[in-house]
Amino acid sequence: MMILFKEIRHNPLLWLLAFVPVVFAAEKLNPEAHTLLFVLSVLAIVPLAALLSHATESVAAKTGDAFGGLLNATLGNLTELVIALAALRAGEYMLVKASIAGALVTNTLFMLGASFLLGGLKYHVQEYNRVGTRLQSGMLFLATVALLIPSLVAKVDASADEFNQTLSLGLAVLLIVTYGLSMLFSLKTHREFFVSAEHAGDDEAPWPLGLALSTLAGVTVLVALVSEIFVESVQKAAEAFGMTPAFVGFIVVALVGGAAEMSAAFSGARKNRLDLSVGIALGSASQIALFVAPVLVLLSYFIGPAPMDLQFWPGAVVMIFIATLIAAFITNSGRSAWFVGVLLLMVYLIFAMTLYLLPPRVQ
Amino acid sequence: MMILFKEIRHNPLLWLLAFVPVVFAAEKLNPEAHTLLFVLSVLAIVPLAALLSHATESVAAKTGDAFGGLLNATLGNLTELVIALAALRAGEYMLVKASIAGALVTNTLFMLGASFLLGGLKYHVQEYNRVGTRLQSGMLFLATVALLIPSLVAKVDASADEFNQTLSLGLAVLLIVTYGLSMLFSLKTHREFFVSAEHAGDDEAPWPLGLALSTLAGVTVLVALVSEIFVESVQKAAEAFGMTPAFVGFIVVALVGGAAEMSAAFSGARKNRLDLSVGIALGSASQIALFVAPVLVLLSYFIGPAPMDLQFWPGAVVMIFIATLIAAFITNSGRSAWFVGVLLLMVYLIFAMTLYLLPPRVQ
Amino acid sequence: MMILFKEIRHNPLLWLLAFVPVVFAAEKLNPEAHTLLFVLSVLAIVPLAALLSHATESVAAKTGDAFGGLLNATLGNLTELVIALAALRAGEYMLVKASIAGALVTNTLFMLGASFLLGGLKYHVQEYNRVGTRLQSGMLFLATVALLIPSLVAKVDASADEFNQTLSLGLAVLLIVTYGLSMLFSLKTHREFFVSAEHAGDDEAPWPLGLALSTLAGVTVLVALVSEIFVESVQKAAEAFGMTPAFVGFIVVALVGGAAEMSAAFSGARKNRLDLSVGIALGSASQIALFVAPVLVLLSYFIGPAPMDLQFWPGAVVMIFIATLIAAFITNSGRSAWFVGVLLLMVYLIFAMTLYLLPPRVQ
Repeated sequence: MMILFKEIRHNPLLWLLAFVPVVFAAEKLNPEAHTLLFVLSVLAIVPLAALLSHATESVAAKTGDAFGGLLNATLGNLTELVIALAALRAGEYMLVKASIAGALVTNTLFMLGASFLLGGLKYHVQEYNRVGTRLQSGMLFLATVALLIPSLVAKVDASADEFNQTLSLGLAVLLIVTYGLSMLFSLKTHREFFVSAEHAGDDEAPWPLGLALSTLAGVTVLVALVSEIFVESVQKAAEAFGMTPAFVGFIVVALVGGAAEMSAAFSGARKNRLDLSVGIALGSASQIALFVAPVLVLLSYFIGPAPMDLQFWPGAVVMIFIATLIAAFITNSGRSAWFVGVLLLMVYLIFAMTLYLLPPRVQ
Repeated sequence: MMILFKEIRHNPLLWLLAFVPVVFAAEKLNPEAHTLLFVLSVLAIVPLAALLSHATESVAAKTGDAFGGLLNATLGNLTELVIALAALRAGEYMLVKASIAGALVTNTLFMLGASFLLGGLKYHVQEYNRVGTRLQSGMLFLATVALLIPSLVAKVDASADEFNQTLSLGLAVLLIVTYGLSMLFSLKTHREFFVSAEHAGDDEAPWPLGLALSTLAGVTVLVALVSEIFVESVQKAAEAFGMTPAFVGFIVVALVGGAAEMSAAFSGARKNRLDLSVGIALGSASQIALFVAPVLVLLSYFIGPAPMDLQFWPGAVVMIFIATLIAAFITNSGRSAWFVGVLLLMVYLIFAMTLYLLPPRVQ
Repeated sequence: MMILFKEIRHNPLLWLLAFVPVVFAAEKLNPEAHTLLFVLSVLAIVPLAALLSHATESVAAKTGDAFGGLLNATLGNLTELVIALAALRAGEYMLVKASIAGALVTNTLFMLGASFLLGGLKYHVQEYNRVGTRLQSGMLFLATVALLIPSLVAKVDASADEFNQTLSLGLAVLLIVTYGLSMLFSLKTHREFFVSAEHAGDDEAPWPLGLALSTLAGVTVLVALVSEIFVESVQKAAEAFGMTPAFVGFIVVALVGGAAEMSAAFSGARKNRLDLSVGIALGSASQIALFVAPVLVLLSYFIGPAPMDLQFWPGAVVMIFIATLIAAFITNSGRSAWFVGVLLLMVYLIFAMTLYLLPPRVQ
């Protein structure tokens, strides 16, 4: 516990943990103060996500390479998964889908763009490993395309609900099988091409296994509880701020859920270790497409009010497709400069502006 | 003739030739047994396609380099062409278009993916000539885009039939001119960038010219006759198997028609000659777009009940575009490993699943 | 003035200047002869664009590197801008948008394709700087995608006019900010990656500053006056020629407005300086997307009958997207041969044919 407190003392981001009890208290005292609860729950999730990420890395470091890598990869998007599960249980399928779409777009455009910009402000031109990156961006592109096929085919052919449901279920199974094979590939047969995300925490000493495991368990429970408050309040709070549900899921949830990974990616870029930043961004996006999205579809048969399909609204399909295409194209050269980051961030900004302005009924 | 028999004895695939007389007999005895006729005709076409491919290569080897290459390239998709002609004569335009679309997608995703996977299971990383491949994948991408333009523009603008017809005719002429120029380029001015498909049959000795020519003629007639039975039975058989016409044209016809090329591509991959596999897959797909498709449009003015346009249904447009984009992107690196093959096959599987599940009316 | 006359005597293109007084005279004598006025104004704009381009380069050469580069980049598409302004004032928004779309497509497919073909007829394989080109094509791809987002999102979501207007305005501001940053990048921080367009005029001696400035001012006024006649006559003349307004804006205006840049790009290709040709084509296209288009949106609030949005018709969106994707993909290899040029020109020809055949009502 001493280590945990020391860690908290040294990391200003973790001071936000103070908002965890505050949000629970506020929810008890005034469950109708949606806007306040929304803001407080966002402030509480950010440090919890950071803790979760550190705990996962510590467990991974202790349990050895292959299993640790598997754990790290699987729990890397745990915060997004827990938030999405809360939305799933509440039947907020629009929010679930928006957060899947948003995580893909935010990882590829915002995380990558900000890494390039932050790194580029310090270094004239940054180079990174082309071979590994091409494999990763190829994986991401194909995974994303697979995820979008039901939307693409069904959108243009306006087919029946039952068809969508069966297709989404079959697709979810295929994606999870592919995810398993990708683990075999990146952790076992071709690990030399992948920068392991563990190195992200290089500077910080790993925690002892007991502390790491109990933090992992405890913090996951806390994230789940706060996520429930977040999901309940978000709809009404969004109205108060004049935000559409698509904007909230796409931008707010994705930025909140990805905060920990982003700080690791940005710190890598500032240290001229762009391999690391690109690896985190592309890897995390692949995981959303190959693991988080299909798991949510499968779980919707058990915990949601009705099965969820993988049908995204047309604007989201366009944005996801373009974001992945851009990421694949841009990382192809293995070279970056500050303006490349500006361009990626500009496209992200335009997406955000579009979602903010979009009339709610058409999403 | 001895050589032919010896060849047949050594190649188990050719034992399927026994089904050729069987399918004719069955058609005489019971012309209404559609499912049986469908299965028998598929089993008969596969070995005929293999013979056709070997005969073409032998003629090509004898007639010398430039003319032989031209012959090889032009007759490389002869099976697909003959099957499509049978469908054209029967007025089954949906089947014709599905088989064009299917050949493009099967060549790029399945043939390439299975080559990468088979090669990757044996070799850790396989490299192939980037420069030639980039030229070829660029050619394929542009050819495919050209083929899709009427569908893309007309789909979104919902324009008149007459416009489609004129545009498709003009496009067919342009595509064939481009095909002629591409022959000039790949066989004459820049042949050093292209792996000639003749080398596929390296191990097998070429047949004498007389045998090769008579096999070519005889087998083409047989393929034409069997194709007619195939096209007549396919619609009813598909219903019996619960398959949509789109699925049959897209997946079954494409796999049956391309069997010979696939076996050449796969054997290249197993011998670590991925240049060959990639060359066959991309070259064959380009030929479908630049030669087979426009020839069918032009011939529809003479042998079909009405002129055929190049308007594909929206789902096919999406699949063709994505398959070509993926092929161009993936082959860009000149490097492959088993998981890249898995990803390509997964996208192909998802396409197949989508087509299988798609309600028939919406295609 | 002596230099100007000498220049005119040596450059046959400039002999077309004789049509400038002719078009004014014709407009006075017979303002209803639309077809004649259209042809005359086209013939008059081409040499004026060439003069404008030479004057800009001379001013740029005199005023020093950074400011000169800025000037050159900003005035490089001055002819297109002046023509579009005349159309904007006349409220011909369809023509304005078609000319933006056409300039993007013409620069990427026609200018690049003809450069590759002309160069390839003389040299077996031409190589050009991959690193700089990738940065430029990445910039172009992202700029174009940004420009298309309102069309993509609104097309599929069929949303309200007011939303489009606000989004287009916000987008215009973002694009201009990005343009400013791209100037900083290409002229200041990373200039080594960019071939400056000034070198295009290597052979010609720069004019004295006074002559250059007065030519710049005088010719801009002449282009503006001729453009007005052009815009007035184009609609009726197009009908007489059986051309749709989309075809005129897309193909005719783009070819006329870009004549000067094209002649520089082609001459670079013939001299085996493909870096120059590719730089001009990609740079000019980026400038249309990042500078000309948003400036026209902003100016429409002041000089047009109503604000203009950035909503393109679906066929234009498809063409722009495909053209940019192709340009990015093709230039990725840093290598070219004559057939690559043929392929690019073929796609351009297919676009032109489609627009020519398209029934006017559906554009």
